[in-house]
Amino acid sequence: MNIQNDRSRIAAAGGIDEPRLWAHLLEFGRIGAIDGGGVCRLALSDEELIARQHIARWARTRGYRVFVDDIANLFIRRDGTDAAAPPVITGSHIDSQPQGGRFDGAYGVIAGLEALAALDAASVETRRPIEVVAWTNEEGVRYSPGAMGSMVFSGALALADIADRRGTDGVVLADALRMAKAATPEAATRAGIDRPAAYVELHIEQGPKLEAQGIPIGIVEGIQGVRWFDVDVRGAGAHAGTTPCSQRRDAFQDALRIVNALNAAMADANDVLRFTIGRFDVIPNSRNTVPTQVRFGIDLRHPDAAVLRERGDRIAAIAAGSVAHCTVSVTEVFTKAPAIFDPGVLTAIEGSTRLLQIPSVRMPSGAFHDALFLNGVCPTGMIFIPCEHGISHNPAENITAAQAAAGARVLAATLVALAA
Amino acid sequence: MNIQNDRSRIAAAGGIDEPRLWAHLLEFGRIGAIDGGGVCRLALSDEELIARQHIARWARTRGYRVFVDDIANLFIRRDGTDAAAPPVITGSHIDSQPQGGRFDGAYGVIAGLEALAALDAASVETRRPIEVVAWTNEEGVRYSPGAMGSMVFSGALALADIADRRGTDGVVLADALRMAKAATPEAATRAGIDRPAAYVELHIEQGPKLEAQGIPIGIVEGIQGVRWFDVDVRGAGAHAGTTPCSQRRDAFQDALRIVNALNAAMADANDVLRFTIGRFDVIPNSRNTVPTQVRFGIDLRHPDAAVLRERGDRIAAIAAGSVAHCTVSVTEVFTKAPAIFDPGVLTAIEGSTRLLQIPSVRMPSGAFHDALFLNGVCPTGMIFIPCEHGISHNPAENITAAQAAAGARVLAATLVALAA
Repeated sequence: MNIQNDRSRIAAAGGIDEPRLWAHLLEFGRIGAIDGGGVCRLALSDEELIARQHIARWARTRGYRVFVDDIANLFIRRDGTDAAAPPVITGSHIDSQPQGGRFDGAYGVIAGLEALAALDAASVETRRPIEVVAWTNEEGVRYSPGAMGSMVFSGALALADIADRRGTDGVVLADALRMAKAATPEAATRAGIDRPAAYVELHIEQGPKLEAQGIPIGIVEGIQGVRWFDVDVRGAGAHAGTTPCSQRRDAFQDALRIVNALNAAMADANDVLRFTIGRFDVIPNSRNTVPTQVRFGIDLRHPDAAVLRERGDRIAAIAAGSVAHCTVSVTEVFTKAPAIFDPGVLTAIEGSTRLLQIPSVRMPSGAFHDALFLNGVCPTGMIFIPCEHGISHNPAENITAAQAAAGARVLAATLVALAA
Repeated sequence: MNIQNDRSRIAAAGGIDEPRLWAHLLEFGRIGAIDGGGVCRLALSDEELIARQHIARWARTRGYRVFVDDIANLFIRRDGTDAAAPPVITGSHIDSQPQGGRFDGAYGVIAGLEALAALDAASVETRRPIEVVAWTNEEGVRYSPGAMGSMVFSGALALADIADRRGTDGVVLADALRMAKAATPEAATRAGIDRPAAYVELHIEQGPKLEAQGIPIGIVEGIQGVRWFDVDVRGAGAHAGTTPCSQRRDAFQDALRIVNALNAAMADANDVLRFTIGRFDVIPNSRNTVPTQVRFGIDLRHPDAAVLRERGDRIAAIAAGSVAHCTVSVTEVFTKAPAIFDPGVLTAIEGSTRLLQIPSVRMPSGAFHDALFLNGVCPTGMIFIPCEHGISHNPAENITAAQAAAGARVLAATLVALAA
């Protein structure tokens, strides 16, 4: 045990200012605020650009350097004593779902900034620099795929291959990135980092387990795998009043047959498999026209790679076997195998919780996060805090000031350990 | 038998110029043209205003007077010898579905104009004036309800009660009507007509029967009744990766349960009942968010008022009994009892087909039409022509020049009979 290091970790955690952190979270949640306490801050939107400006201003005021890379990931850097050492990175994302909560993503970024302030307050020096990052477009709502910023950073995706994609509003990604970079002129442009020293991401659980068990910290051992499919059902439009039901090629009714069959095939008595249809578009979507086409999106997740492979591989055949009158095509648009986080980072987190005497439990992550992609290039881990009723991706998403501060304290102590 | 009248009717039909009518239909179909040969000409949209200007210009060039009423129904008037006599009206609508065909509605208006030209060419005078009308917003896509123009004209709906409604694009109806009236400055503003002498509407069948039987003219005896319902399913949004399926209140899955139950309850071994779900909106419609809400629209039709009442009255209870985790509300947003057309008008149509030696058959209409509302204020009837494979509300909708001309000849002869 390194007594000097332990003292620094405890000091750093002690520098976390709960009221200041909570006020900052609430202030940040007003950017893109919507009814019900949530936010709509789509990636690279006007609201998200204001959020970027808020962070850059915060950094400038406190003397931290600000960087931005080609995919507009935004980095706030607190220098270490060894200027040549690769940084320890923490952070998350500041974009949201269309009807998202205030804490999903934003908590990890704002708590990261609070950790930098805490190190300053406690006069803790680290050998390695510590950087807080806001990854571009984690949610994948306006632009596909999600986690775009961390994918490009980690080399899982080439910006050149997606730069000409259009958002749901028609804006080309390259143009949106240019506008985002222009919004934070204090940020120096920087190429990627070959291999960060470590990455640790603090996030709300977005599930009910920690709250149910009354445990303030989850040490995230890994992330379940995910597969995304697009299903495209094509029938024939017809007049609702004149076309006998027997003569229709109704894309809605055939989509319904597919979903009924998929529901049966994706049932899981253990309640571990996550099968979701969240997007469902009817064309032309007019009450008195038999639908010509239906496109819907499937989100499938499981922590066991073999189960995820077996279930996902059945979807195309089930769809093809379910349609009565239409044609159907199934396309896998995204896939990510389950991830297992770095034991060293997890030990550093666990050590921090012991040092600070905060109860913790090891657990998997149901959601995927930018950490999934960082895990490919450097030692990576995640810290969860509870959220109210496990609700997320919903304006009702909520946490308490005490929960927020506990997570930030564990983060600050962990950053000191990793950056020593 | 009135020999003089028969001669006039045959002469009027002989004035129909098949190539001219066909060229006019194709020219009109270029206004708001979309891929696949169809049109998107939503009520009071820019495209529909251009279509109105086309008609007004056509009328002005030929010396017909043009009128517009408060709901922006557009009338082209060919005077009769008795200026005080109420007019015989023919026509249909020029708005379309978002992915509509070129002939639904437009055929009845353009063929009506061709009939006026035919009477001129044959120098046929009538006692009553003959007017060709384009009713406002038959389709009910941009503004609800459909058949708004004929409903207001016939007194079934008060404009004051709907003037502040917003279209799907947010434009207030009163503003859209003002712009439509401004688009045709040659049209004199006119209040409604107390009681037209008769109304006859020429339309494509939008169903497969005439084509299957090889009969060029359908004499429409009545229109099946229709009931429209809105179903609103409310659950709770949640993260698709973290929320166990057992703990979700998934509005999509509960909407699916409702539709499955409705499909079973609305099954009809005779294939006469028309049950359609053409509109289905998922909120927030994001792949990795469990849907918070689903709103969908039901279109239910049957020619027997008792059957329509009994089936429709069951929908709310079936919806309430089907949801597993969400709340649901069902609202009836439109209803119209089955209509039976005027025997005198049907006899005039049938007499025209005999006189012109064009085969015909009596039949019901599966779609509703503006004629449904005119039937409440004056003797009313409809003429159908076949359309290819019965396809309508679809860009693939099609007819032949010969079919178009046959319908126009029967219309011209019938207008002369009714306006004698």
